[in-house]
Amino acid sequence: MLLEDASRLGIEATILAEHPEDGAAKEASRVLFGEAQDAAALRRLAGQVDVITFDHELVDLDVLAQLQDEGVVLRPSPQALLYAVDKIEMRTRLDAAGLPMPAFAVVGVGTQPDVERLGHELGWPLIIKSSRGGYDGRGVFVAPDSAAAASVIDELHRAGISALVEERVSIDKELAALVARRPSGETAAWSVVETAQVDGVCREVLVPGGLAASVVAEAAALAVEIAGLLDVVGVMAVELFSSPGRLVINELAMRPHNSGHWTQDGAATSQFENHLRSVLDLPLGSTELTAPKVACVNVFGSEAVDDLESALFDALVIPDAKLHLYGKTPRPGRKLGHVNVTGTDGPTVRRHAWMAALALGTPMPPEMEEL
Amino acid sequence: MLLEDASRLGIEATILAEHPEDGAAKEASRVLFGEAQDAAALRRLAGQVDVITFDHELVDLDVLAQLQDEGVVLRPSPQALLYAVDKIEMRTRLDAAGLPMPAFAVVGVGTQPDVERLGHELGWPLIIKSSRGGYDGRGVFVAPDSAAAASVIDELHRAGISALVEERVSIDKELAALVARRPSGETAAWSVVETAQVDGVCREVLVPGGLAASVVAEAAALAVEIAGLLDVVGVMAVELFSSPGRLVINELAMRPHNSGHWTQDGAATSQFENHLRSVLDLPLGSTELTAPKVACVNVFGSEAVDDLESALFDALVIPDAKLHLYGKTPRPGRKLGHVNVTGTDGPTVRRHAWMAALALGTPMPPEMEEL
Repeated sequence: MLLEDASRLGIEATILAEHPEDGAAKEASRVLFGEAQDAAALRRLAGQVDVITFDHELVDLDVLAQLQDEGVVLRPSPQALLYAVDKIEMRTRLDAAGLPMPAFAVVGVGTQPDVERLGHELGWPLIIKSSRGGYDGRGVFVAPDSAAAASVIDELHRAGISALVEERVSIDKELAALVARRPSGETAAWSVVETAQVDGVCREVLVPGGLAASVVAEAAALAVEIAGLLDVVGVMAVELFSSPGRLVINELAMRPHNSGHWTQDGAATSQFENHLRSVLDLPLGSTELTAPKVACVNVFGSEAVDDLESALFDALVIPDAKLHLYGKTPRPGRKLGHVNVTGTDGPTVRRHAWMAALALGTPMPPEMEEL
Repeated sequence: MLLEDASRLGIEATILAEHPEDGAAKEASRVLFGEAQDAAALRRLAGQVDVITFDHELVDLDVLAQLQDEGVVLRPSPQALLYAVDKIEMRTRLDAAGLPMPAFAVVGVGTQPDVERLGHELGWPLIIKSSRGGYDGRGVFVAPDSAAAASVIDELHRAGISALVEERVSIDKELAALVARRPSGETAAWSVVETAQVDGVCREVLVPGGLAASVVAEAAALAVEIAGLLDVVGVMAVELFSSPGRLVINELAMRPHNSGHWTQDGAATSQFENHLRSVLDLPLGSTELTAPKVACVNVFGSEAVDDLESALFDALVIPDAKLHLYGKTPRPGRKLGHVNVTGTDGPTVRRHAWMAALALGTPMPPEMEEL
């Protein structure tokens, strides 16, 4: 999706992909093959471009720092990416800056945890996270008692990974705040969204959903503050929890993010275009809404539909549904695309987006709020 | 631009291109090389796809009719395309249906014209057009007197081309009406636009521009009527002239058209997406405006800018300008892309679109209405 906007803006993009069958490799006109963690591959890429940016966080920060020393322009920088890659670094840094987060403790490798005391201080169950490597709910454990907590921490330590131990926040709503920031510091924020996750996987994004105006304003201000604090360049998504009486930061992503796919149709400038503008230090585009309400529903494969082409008719019956399919073969549970709908009535845009997603075979989990 | 929407909808597209350097050939994942007039090339294409459609009118209708007889699905059909390819057929057919057109006469090859009588009946100067082969102002001649008229007609006849002779309409405004139509007859019309041509080349498109509501309604109804009358499948643009007291049809195009590029940002569904939906007989998307006012300004090369990349900064300073560049190397007079701006104030969106186009080096001809 970054490539589409690059092409439209006349920006020449070269991508580094692992396999010729990767989605982006099929779309790009210039592709290098190699691993994103491989210094030699990144050096070859750097030889062809002015700026290197990222659409995932599976990077080796040491390799990136080495390239940076060699003069390669990386945006965001490895110094900023650290806080998207490492949850302990993120919690510690944002906590020091006084930003609202769950109560937490760090149990580093080689440290013996006093799980009884942690449970006493943070409350049961404890949330235990691996410092690095987790996303979409992976790397997050719920420990109901001391034995479980000790076992999870021990397992992480034996893999050489420090443990982040957190209170379980009572979640009223999950939300995400999206910003784009240039090297010069110019920052643009999109509307804050309500997200719905099932098993750690994002299923729908509603703008503004059921969020109170005060929560929206606080979340947007937090995202702008974090972007400046960490000197982020590019798009950053801040995932937050709203619980009675407070807002806490959950995670950071420094790249175009699923919670921002709605911007393709619901904002004057998409997150992809503003990510490109940011990393090239070009003026940012307007982040204004194109309609008062926007819904984005992710499309997943199921047993119900094994051929998206034949399901297309039913999906396009919804006249305001904008389909964004990724060209993948359907397989149960595989993410195949997303549907955006804009309009003036929140329940209507949500229903229309789900109707199109359902037509394409997306299962609607019972955990989702009724349509 | 058709390919981008095809990819997003999960529609597999194969294109027939003449050269590997053609814009579409660089974007498409599946390309056959050959000429659009070549039966063998079209047969190879037909072997790989369900439906063949067109993004230009440089076709051989006899070859297409032959393929149709062989069972190839062509949308629009050669029977409909005839009226976009041949101006005499178009005038004669629409005139027989009672649709509003300039007064005209046909001077077929082998016929001796009485130019004095034509001038007397239609008024001087006469507009003389080649029946086929003209677009963007080419193939249109203004004959101020009998000698000039006789000479132009003679030249056309010697090339084996019949001449269409028309009155010169006093043009108050130029406008275009865009519709999409499925084989089933379902038709969707976008807002009618005011266009500005200089030397026969479209420079700007304004929605709704300075058009009176009654003119807009009449033009939209005409386009829907013509689409049904000619059994058009796909997108059709009807170019019209508004002159004091009447509206006349100028030309037809049966493909996504420059006068409809604004739909990429100014309508819920673009002309490209609805062209694909139409030719695949899928339900049409909403053609509603995303904002009350839309401007589309074409970007042309000039001596002023020889590198679009370095001009990008200045163009993107306009925060609501949506750039659509075609990846071409700038050359004076070459069309390089277009800029869309949406908003609530007509003069503002027009000014912003021109500011971005000017930043990219587009010359603003003195014939254009002052900004």
